[in-house]
Amino acid sequence: MTLPIKTVFFISDGTGITAETFGNSVLSQFLHHYRFKMVREPFIKTVPQIEDIIRRIDEIAVTDSPPIIFSTLVQEEIVEKIRNSKGIFLDIFTACVNTLELSLNVKSQPAIGLSHHNVGSDAYRKRIEAINFTLAHDDGQFVHGLEQSDVILVGVSRSGKTPTSLYLAMQYALRVANFPLIPEDFERGQLPKTIQPYRHKLFGLSIHPDRLSEIRSERRPNSKYASIEQCRYEVAEAERLLRMENISWLSSTTKSIEEISTQILQILKIDPKTIG
Amino acid sequence: MTLPIKTVFFISDGTGITAETFGNSVLSQFLHHYRFKMVREPFIKTVPQIEDIIRRIDEIAVTDSPPIIFSTLVQEEIVEKIRNSKGIFLDIFTACVNTLELSLNVKSQPAIGLSHHNVGSDAYRKRIEAINFTLAHDDGQFVHGLEQSDVILVGVSRSGKTPTSLYLAMQYALRVANFPLIPEDFERGQLPKTIQPYRHKLFGLSIHPDRLSEIRSERRPNSKYASIEQCRYEVAEAERLLRMENISWLSSTTKSIEEISTQILQILKIDPKTIG
Repeated sequence: MTLPIKTVFFISDGTGITAETFGNSVLSQFLHHYRFKMVREPFIKTVPQIEDIIRRIDEIAVTDSPPIIFSTLVQEEIVEKIRNSKGIFLDIFTACVNTLELSLNVKSQPAIGLSHHNVGSDAYRKRIEAINFTLAHDDGQFVHGLEQSDVILVGVSRSGKTPTSLYLAMQYALRVANFPLIPEDFERGQLPKTIQPYRHKLFGLSIHPDRLSEIRSERRPNSKYASIEQCRYEVAEAERLLRMENISWLSSTTKSIEEISTQILQILKIDPKTIG
Repeated sequence: MTLPIKTVFFISDGTGITAETFGNSVLSQFLHHYRFKMVREPFIKTVPQIEDIIRRIDEIAVTDSPPIIFSTLVQEEIVEKIRNSKGIFLDIFTACVNTLELSLNVKSQPAIGLSHHNVGSDAYRKRIEAINFTLAHDDGQFVHGLEQSDVILVGVSRSGKTPTSLYLAMQYALRVANFPLIPEDFERGQLPKTIQPYRHKLFGLSIHPDRLSEIRSERRPNSKYASIEQCRYEVAEAERLLRMENISWLSSTTKSIEEISTQILQILKIDPKTIG
């Protein structure tokens, strides 16, 4: 059976990324009834812009079926117009904002400029610096400045250190270095000397040898590096070293970079900042 | 005047990243009344876990003031308990899901596993491949496989190519190469030969010379590279080249990586995928 296609508009006066992320979560609960064709409408700030979108929405509503609209628009003049289109209008913040206004007995005030997406803010600058730091300290390539890192990920080659480091930098503005554990370290039975002073910042990533062998084989098929024997050896030795050195670690095998990152924050007790 | 501090819990059976992003947007509208101290509670799946959190919420409610709770929990048994805590409970999806159920006349179904955060999905694998591709093709360092790129960013050194590339890869699973425009290119008055065949994928980033000089000075103070004269020359030449070659471009000077990325998607007409 082919499911009907429903058109979905994400409309925002900014990038619309929050609307899209939120909308995808909501729509995933309706995938047994529909397929969804998405339309992104960012940076909508004027009446002519919204009137153009409404024309397209109303046309789809008439010729096909009413589109779904996820909106983070705040300008009253514009919201008023889109609310009266023939689409199904969802203002994603309103319900929560209203509840909070009632519970706290204060009025909300559309605020711009405090998010970490705001280019002029300290939070934004910290994020970009964190991304640059993290790139410069990928795969142990640059050892200066490790004392400025917030976290140092360690693990065998291809255990997921790099994408996790970048996610932590981009999402949480953390300076994350990552450092490979290699056969020479296992032979010496010690952490690489360079990172020994930073034990309290270390976090290990491990991975199931079968999965590691698969991943390595994509890069270097039929190599010793990708062989299941080599992967078994390296993973066992890396986990032994992490245990011996009493370093927190987790297995990345079945976890997304979001899940791995969230667990790292939890285990290292890196809390969100107070805002305001 | 010091604003009172309000505690905020982000509670989820997953990473809680959607709850946190959404919550930050909502809370930013109340920053003229409160400061917010955030507490992250991811991976909450059992009754004892939620009972522990409720004890802490109720204690804060009694000794200080009722915390705000942003929840994406779905298990009824658990939601029922937290709904009856002494906190201000905000179920961020419910209002929209209810409206959609009514408008579409269907029942929702909590669905897991279709998001691009899901490690087993094709979408997730594509994202990780995109991140790896993007890293390998940062700063023109690897020219093989450019034909597989979705976008190739070009611009002078430090115009914002790298963080934008990584954001596009991580958020939209795009394979983004980036390529510097250097004085030799300006002397020849041509795009680098390597990227000439991929003209339709090229997108330019420029930047105001003053800002460029600031950014370069952080890396190499008092260098010719960071001098305002050099920055003016490179920016003028790069923009001339982009115009001459008829390549779309924008100025990154006052834009976040989210804003730059959204505009690139818009201009290159890279639409979201249909889901389901």
